[in-house]
Amino acid sequence: MLSIVLLGSGNLAQHLANAIYSSDGLELKQVYGRNPKALNSFETFAPITNSISEIVQADIYLLAVTDGNIGHLAAQLPETVGTIVHTSGAVGMDVIGNDKRGVFYPVQTFTKGKPVDFWAIPICIEANTEQSEQHLVKLANGLSNQVYKLGSEQRSQLHLSAVFANNFSNYLFGISEEICRRNNIPFEILRPLILETALKVQTLSPFNAQTGPARRGDTNSIQKHLELITSTTEREIYTLLSNAIKTNHEEEL
Amino acid sequence: MLSIVLLGSGNLAQHLANAIYSSDGLELKQVYGRNPKALNSFETFAPITNSISEIVQADIYLLAVTDGNIGHLAAQLPETVGTIVHTSGAVGMDVIGNDKRGVFYPVQTFTKGKPVDFWAIPICIEANTEQSEQHLVKLANGLSNQVYKLGSEQRSQLHLSAVFANNFSNYLFGISEEICRRNNIPFEILRPLILETALKVQTLSPFNAQTGPARRGDTNSIQKHLELITSTTEREIYTLLSNAIKTNHEEEL
Repeated sequence: MLSIVLLGSGNLAQHLANAIYSSDGLELKQVYGRNPKALNSFETFAPITNSISEIVQADIYLLAVTDGNIGHLAAQLPETVGTIVHTSGAVGMDVIGNDKRGVFYPVQTFTKGKPVDFWAIPICIEANTEQSEQHLVKLANGLSNQVYKLGSEQRSQLHLSAVFANNFSNYLFGISEEICRRNNIPFEILRPLILETALKVQTLSPFNAQTGPARRGDTNSIQKHLELITSTTEREIYTLLSNAIKTNHEEEL
Repeated sequence: MLSIVLLGSGNLAQHLANAIYSSDGLELKQVYGRNPKALNSFETFAPITNSISEIVQADIYLLAVTDGNIGHLAAQLPETVGTIVHTSGAVGMDVIGNDKRGVFYPVQTFTKGKPVDFWAIPICIEANTEQSEQHLVKLANGLSNQVYKLGSEQRSQLHLSAVFANNFSNYLFGISEEICRRNNIPFEILRPLILETALKVQTLSPFNAQTGPARRGDTNSIQKHLELITSTTEREIYTLLSNAIKTNHEEEL
């Protein structure tokens, strides 16, 4: 049985604790966190502690903390036999200075209180020793059926790519909500379209799924849209993205 | 029973024919199209014709043709008792010159061969007479349980908003696919994230769902990402969108 100590008491830690606790081959030995109030909710899953010196021995120490706290927290950990692992897409493995180190990066956005199916979440792992890698593979396979080995450099590119796929697309959904608000249109009307846009690329390539005035090279519609936009930022974004789409599909026109 | 003649043989016409045919209170009387090959696939739903002069009488003439062909096709139609209706989000109602006119705009993206649940698609309607509006309400209620009355001006803003929500976000998914391709990362890894991004805003407001370096004001991560980007266009988009998100969430920082 692979034993895990989870460090952190935020949103990701909550989802991880629940998933590890529910997995047959994994033992959640302890949860460490600094915030006593947030930590209490973990008592259903494992013994809790807010003291570094009370942390017990385990195969894996899973750090679900903000990027800036990873190195510092890892350095404070007592001498262990286990592997120290962070969960960040943006940070290299070597921000952890300990002998046995690794990364366990779940590529998903987690919402507080919204249950997720961990089995469907791709996990990217990296480790600096063979034994650590074996442990991480075991952990990842116990939680997900999509496990990928990815080095720090590839992972940082993946994280950049996730910013476009998630953060930036969500911001565009926000612009569409804002345009609706300004014109007294219920945002409800656009929600099924947003969902279908994401469902489409579950099987199609986004390049092939592209539609709209810019792909068709329909400058007349583009001009009409630009006249409808009242915000300078939105006009800049509309222009930049339309030109990029046009260039991308130029050969078809 | 409300009778409908459908004009067009493309992707949207296919989905509409199927939905009208399957609806209890609606009668698909005829399908008109110029392309005989495309038109043949409609024979399971209704009698077909490729001759304008053979078009029969009906309550509604539903034009599922490209924006540029609406006015021309409507003008060619024989004198009818029915209402001439187009299905475009981008075009005003009055591009149709006939006495009884209207708009039936399904706010969704349709993929060839991919079945859709028409009941979940919001339909925006507009008409120039009370009787035409009643007919359109009947048609829309026979196909969907989300029906909205929207004037031409509001509809054009909705269409603009849909370009951000659908076309532009799909293009960002394409950038993330391209970054993956360049770095030998399977795009598979990002698909669950894309789906969850869209699922999140089915209940949350995109403004509240916003995450990422720009929302946190994490200039260090932003700088690192900019160094990873190898394409000028992608760098421009990254910078413009990050600055916009930062400005949008400034008060929280």
